[in-house]
Amino acid sequence: VPGVDFAGAAMRDVMRGEETQIFGELARTGKREGRFVLPGTHSKWVRVGGGRIVEFSTYMTGEIFAACRNHTILGRLMEESATSPAAFARGVEAGANAGHPGALLNRLFGVRTAGLFGEIPGSGLADYLSGLLIGAEIADGAAGSTEAVGIIASDELEGRYRQAAAQLGIAAEVLDSDLALAGQLAIARAAGLIAASAEGAGL
Amino acid sequence: VPGVDFAGAAMRDVMRGEETQIFGELARTGKREGRFVLPGTHSKWVRVGGGRIVEFSTYMTGEIFAACRNHTILGRLMEESATSPAAFARGVEAGANAGHPGALLNRLFGVRTAGLFGEIPGSGLADYLSGLLIGAEIADGAAGSTEAVGIIASDELEGRYRQAAAQLGIAAEVLDSDLALAGQLAIARAAGLIAASAEGAGL
Repeated sequence: VPGVDFAGAAMRDVMRGEETQIFGELARTGKREGRFVLPGTHSKWVRVGGGRIVEFSTYMTGEIFAACRNHTILGRLMEESATSPAAFARGVEAGANAGHPGALLNRLFGVRTAGLFGEIPGSGLADYLSGLLIGAEIADGAAGSTEAVGIIASDELEGRYRQAAAQLGIAAEVLDSDLALAGQLAIARAAGLIAASAEGAGL
Repeated sequence: VPGVDFAGAAMRDVMRGEETQIFGELARTGKREGRFVLPGTHSKWVRVGGGRIVEFSTYMTGEIFAACRNHTILGRLMEESATSPAAFARGVEAGANAGHPGALLNRLFGVRTAGLFGEIPGSGLADYLSGLLIGAEIADGAAGSTEAVGIIASDELEGRYRQAAAQLGIAAEVLDSDLALAGQLAIARAAGLIAASAEGAGL
């Protein structure tokens, strides 16, 4: 089943399975409207209307984080450590600042200088980068709507997205992230592949 | 001599030698005002007033390009080829679009989908990514001023920045990129380290 593509105003986009978690959430709650974020390597922001996905956008947040940490100068001053919520919050603020998209290329260099000038310790730089990218993603993904965003994520990402959304004044609610099976079932049922009774039997 | 740092409104920033090219340009032309871009791994946008550097910003354009091409999914569909000015121009347009900084994380994924859906051939995807990042950088770097930007770059980057600036309606002039020696001399002279006569003797 997995696979949806979408031609938005700015670019085409594609999902490869994440939509099943959305359908799972709709099936579980009976909702037919809403917006959702599925954070990850390629975060998905999804708007649902009338029980269907009406638009979505992908952000390369997780993959850019890993590429920056492991393959650019930004990783050099980073030290392994426990998470630093304060550094993360500073990153969120920097990333969410209004400006052109290109400002992100500048703010990323700020991870370097924050380390060089001792504004953030090496132990906090990875979280600063994480906050910067997640803050930038959320500020853009949530723009233009005041509707609460449903976060469907693993525990660690869930906490980061919830903290960043709260900091940016964006209403958010955390949803069950184990919705893929329910979603597959809902899709199968809609397609007439399974009877409701079979599903109830634990298929 | 090399090394300047600057505490801007959004973040601190640092140069490690690029300033000598700026001073070289000022020494060569007698200019005391202007704005300049030195494209590269870490592009520098520099504003000069009264013969001094008054502010500058770094953009990680070149390094993010390399990290994306070599260490993310975006490189997968790229094919080696001659440059594709058309793909580059489409990238510039996508990158310069107004929006939050986080929109760049979304537009980057558009390099993937442009390849997946055949909107841009594999041979043009690297140039599309290049245009996306350079367009984003220029739109942000040049924001808020109509003054012509002096481009101080290698031949290849010079062409890309000139094309992107022209496409975005930003006045730009190409300057001699081999100004570092003249800059070092100008700095040394200002510091009283060299007499004008010694300089004239070909030091």
